[in-house]
Amino acid sequence: MVQMKVWKLILDGRTDTPVVILQELEGKRILPIWIGKAEARAIAMELAREKFQRPLTHDLMKTIIDALGGSIRKVTIGDLKDNTFFAQIFVDKDDEIISIDARPSDSLALALRTRSAIYVAEAFLQDEPDEKELSDDERAEALRKYLDRLDPEDFGKFPGGSQA
Amino acid sequence: MVQMKVWKLILDGRTDTPVVILQELEGKRILPIWIGKAEARAIAMELAREKFQRPLTHDLMKTIIDALGGSIRKVTIGDLKDNTFFAQIFVDKDDEIISIDARPSDSLALALRTRSAIYVAEAFLQDEPDEKELSDDERAEALRKYLDRLDPEDFGKFPGGSQA
Repeated sequence: MVQMKVWKLILDGRTDTPVVILQELEGKRILPIWIGKAEARAIAMELAREKFQRPLTHDLMKTIIDALGGSIRKVTIGDLKDNTFFAQIFVDKDDEIISIDARPSDSLALALRTRSAIYVAEAFLQDEPDEKELSDDERAEALRKYLDRLDPEDFGKFPGGSQA
Repeated sequence: MVQMKVWKLILDGRTDTPVVILQELEGKRILPIWIGKAEARAIAMELAREKFQRPLTHDLMKTIIDALGGSIRKVTIGDLKDNTFFAQIFVDKDDEIISIDARPSDSLALALRTRSAIYVAEAFLQDEPDEKELSDDERAEALRKYLDRLDPEDFGKFPGGSQA
């Protein structure tokens, strides 16, 4: 698996769905994942390091994990079935490691809050659409255009109302 | 404190905000709480006993609590400051009870999933607007009209974008 970081959140204008873009920690390959709006907000708040007055849902989850003596070791995105990505959260507890089935969006929102490592199966990585040297904003714009041409069904869009 | 159940979810048409209505387990007094859309969806799914294909955020939270050997004893809504209700989640862990600060919406979504008791400070309870014998649907409709006349700021609406 390859270690990734959460690079950006983009809105897929065609389907009005947020897309979280992971990028290799040491490279340029990416993985776009279509996610739900609530989970996108949870990721966006943490990317912006904004603190809400009251604990949001994923803040509460972190507090509960801490209170119960657990700690998140890493999250992985290692499976893709029926166009849906599957993630696992690895929690340390008394020197035992527990793995918990989760959606990528919840896993990423938690990983950001706990500064945990994010890993993705190498097979899912894609080259960025544009190889030229671009500024961060230009890359985001190029990526947005690229995503507009893609079919989200190819990339883990959740079947039904809510997303991964 | 008085034990309550989650009675209904209603949309406050004036502010386009979901309102969760708690009702006494053994009585008719209620407590309406304005909440966020994502949390309302988490409550609605559980009220309808719908199971989503993938674990939603509060399902994941329950799984993590179970995996770490905790269990929820009760949730309480016992404080109101600046028009915001404050809740606490009481988690049992190795015969110790840990209390965790939370929003009412997250607490209720978790309580429903874990069949935990819900308590509210008696001072917050209100009489139902209509005392007549009404069907469940008629009561809901009367309540909706009643809520439309209320100012959500009086009842724990969250200041800012997201709600309790």
